[in-house]
Amino acid sequence: MSEKDCIFCRIGKKEIPSKTIYEDSAHIAFLDIKPYTKGHTLLIPKKHYAQFLELPKKEVSGLFALAQELGKKLKAALDAQLIFLSVMGEEIPHTHIHLIPYYGEMPFVARSEPLSGDLDRILKVIKEYKEKK
Amino acid sequence: MSEKDCIFCRIGKKEIPSKTIYEDSAHIAFLDIKPYTKGHTLLIPKKHYAQFLELPKKEVSGLFALAQELGKKLKAALDAQLIFLSVMGEEIPHTHIHLIPYYGEMPFVARSEPLSGDLDRILKVIKEYKEKK
Repeated sequence: MSEKDCIFCRIGKKEIPSKTIYEDSAHIAFLDIKPYTKGHTLLIPKKHYAQFLELPKKEVSGLFALAQELGKKLKAALDAQLIFLSVMGEEIPHTHIHLIPYYGEMPFVARSEPLSGDLDRILKVIKEYKEKK
Repeated sequence: MSEKDCIFCRIGKKEIPSKTIYEDSAHIAFLDIKPYTKGHTLLIPKKHYAQFLELPKKEVSGLFALAQELGKKLKAALDAQLIFLSVMGEEIPHTHIHLIPYYGEMPFVARSEPLSGDLDRILKVIKEYKEKK
């Protein structure tokens, strides 16, 4: 797959819209359209690395520190018990971290069908969540 | 669960033996005794943090940089297509990273029964693997 055709590169460049929960110059995080659980988020570096193992060490550190930060926010905003973190990559060869809220039942059984209406509602909850000081 | 009873704290302190593939003062990585796939490894900080979200940011960076390094070694030593990385934690509340070699079939279907003999054989392959310069 060329980078030109890579769906995650295109999301990073805003050629394809996404339910974005976070963005900086090098990363974007958005709701998975076929979530395992409510709030299932994908965090990607905008730059195309096919496999996680290919990332420069410095980018690994930054990416996972950011994953933790977003995980804390998701857990609090959605009242999850835990946040599962997963890097697979057998489907889309552009490194992505799954952040999967865990509510007490194992999520890896079946992914739901795309639920756009629900995604908007969940996006709102996450975006409007303010950390309790 | 107190840290005294935590199985991963005890593995870190060598009170419980493990098939260790890597160790330094702050981390230990060992073969999972109920692997999803051949070479399924657990990487833990020796210090007890119940959830990944609780780790200090600096430790997150170091832990995942190490996970990547071990993942590269596992992939090469075991000729895997990818290395899946996963942090869950619903069973054992001591932060641990699963490194799960992917050989073309999804691993999250069923975990095998403990296979000690096989573990020794796999441990040998990983330990004896020398990076091609």
